[in-house]
Amino acid sequence: MQPSPSHRPRQRQSREERSIRVCLSPALIPYFKLTDAVVVVIDVLRATTSMCVAFDKGAAEIVPVETIEECAPYIAQGYLAAAERNGETVPGFAMGNSPYAFMGDNIRGARIVVTTTNGTHAIRGAERAGAAEIVVGSFANLNRVAEHLRQSPLQHAVMLCAGWKNNVNLEDTLYAGALVDALQHDFRLGDDAATTAWTLYQAAQKDMRYYLRNSSHTQRLLDLGLERDVKYCLHQDTHPVLPVFHNGRLVL
Amino acid sequence: MQPSPSHRPRQRQSREERSIRVCLSPALIPYFKLTDAVVVVIDVLRATTSMCVAFDKGAAEIVPVETIEECAPYIAQGYLAAAERNGETVPGFAMGNSPYAFMGDNIRGARIVVTTTNGTHAIRGAERAGAAEIVVGSFANLNRVAEHLRQSPLQHAVMLCAGWKNNVNLEDTLYAGALVDALQHDFRLGDDAATTAWTLYQAAQKDMRYYLRNSSHTQRLLDLGLERDVKYCLHQDTHPVLPVFHNGRLVL
Repeated sequence: MQPSPSHRPRQRQSREERSIRVCLSPALIPYFKLTDAVVVVIDVLRATTSMCVAFDKGAAEIVPVETIEECAPYIAQGYLAAAERNGETVPGFAMGNSPYAFMGDNIRGARIVVTTTNGTHAIRGAERAGAAEIVVGSFANLNRVAEHLRQSPLQHAVMLCAGWKNNVNLEDTLYAGALVDALQHDFRLGDDAATTAWTLYQAAQKDMRYYLRNSSHTQRLLDLGLERDVKYCLHQDTHPVLPVFHNGRLVL
Repeated sequence: MQPSPSHRPRQRQSREERSIRVCLSPALIPYFKLTDAVVVVIDVLRATTSMCVAFDKGAAEIVPVETIEECAPYIAQGYLAAAERNGETVPGFAMGNSPYAFMGDNIRGARIVVTTTNGTHAIRGAERAGAAEIVVGSFANLNRVAEHLRQSPLQHAVMLCAGWKNNVNLEDTLYAGALVDALQHDFRLGDDAATTAWTLYQAAQKDMRYYLRNSSHTQRLLDLGLERDVKYCLHQDTHPVLPVFHNGRLVL
């Protein structure tokens, strides 16, 4: 019997051969080679956290789209729909971007279409740039993602921070730094942004909520009364799933 | 007698009214409003350091251009010409990007045309984006720049890191963080990149050369045998001049 591809022994690459890089904004994607890399799309507050919650609660698939208009045909097919802009649920949609919206009994087995201000845009940007593989990362699945990167036959890893409308943000950079930290013995630092993110994580890890209190998006969510969302999104390894983007949709 | 404009008393703006932001790559300029800001262009290794050296040694003006071809008409007018690509002096040019190239007797009174891989491109990018004022910053003139920003009637400050071919780099981010640190009582942090740069500076300030030893451009310069250039560029307040970009050229 032939071993299945996933069990075929592979030559392990050394740390020096594998690099981890950090793309701090979707606007910087053109300066990264993604065709030989696992790309981890990061939108900690809150899109990629909420996606991990949804899959852990039994969602069948999530289709990330960039515009509100693109949701309509999926809704017509019976998909649940979630839409967020500027931190708020888009009027007419039952769900926005809160992890708490993806915990109900309606999530089990559901197909969901999602559009958010930054996260879904970053996933599609990585797709357009020809990423070899795209996975979704958040603190909720941090070590699940790290283990996947360690075991991947792909040579390199790129952490793609969704940011805020192409501006660099603190929480996504911090999470990228947490992954660099977790993978320091498996990948060499591939660029100065990886060093930057790692330094940030080392400075903030003892009390991330305190460190992030002045971040622009934390402030935005606090102003909207969403403190419990911020708190939820910083908990580690609470939803150890691995959403993978394949043929236009996220699946496990 | 009328007081001159520079001595006219002005309403001092409070810290809350003034923001300092950090643009980590020229590719992110479109996401910044520069029309009411002093823009500090930063290319620590080595363009903006060398410009400070040249002015301190008596240069009359420096014209930053983006291409090697643009140097020719200036050379025909008797300008000295300096051209660097990928860390090396362009063949046919007497000067590249080393601060040591701008210390000779020929610099006094000289008009100089300069093109470099990143720094001159960043200056022109800020010009195209309509920056209210553009100045040149390096560790060599750090406190001179900080004092200028404190006294400026312009409301905001944007630190523009030249980076490396639109990738984020460590030394320019570190310098941006040093300016955020120097101006923490005068400007509020205007974005998460300012927090990121400040955290980096706090982590690295005790031994910047050690911290920067693995930065991509430090490695590139060390490979070219340019360790003394790296060392020179990290010395603080050695050339306390303020180069300002005006009508297509830098002057004091």
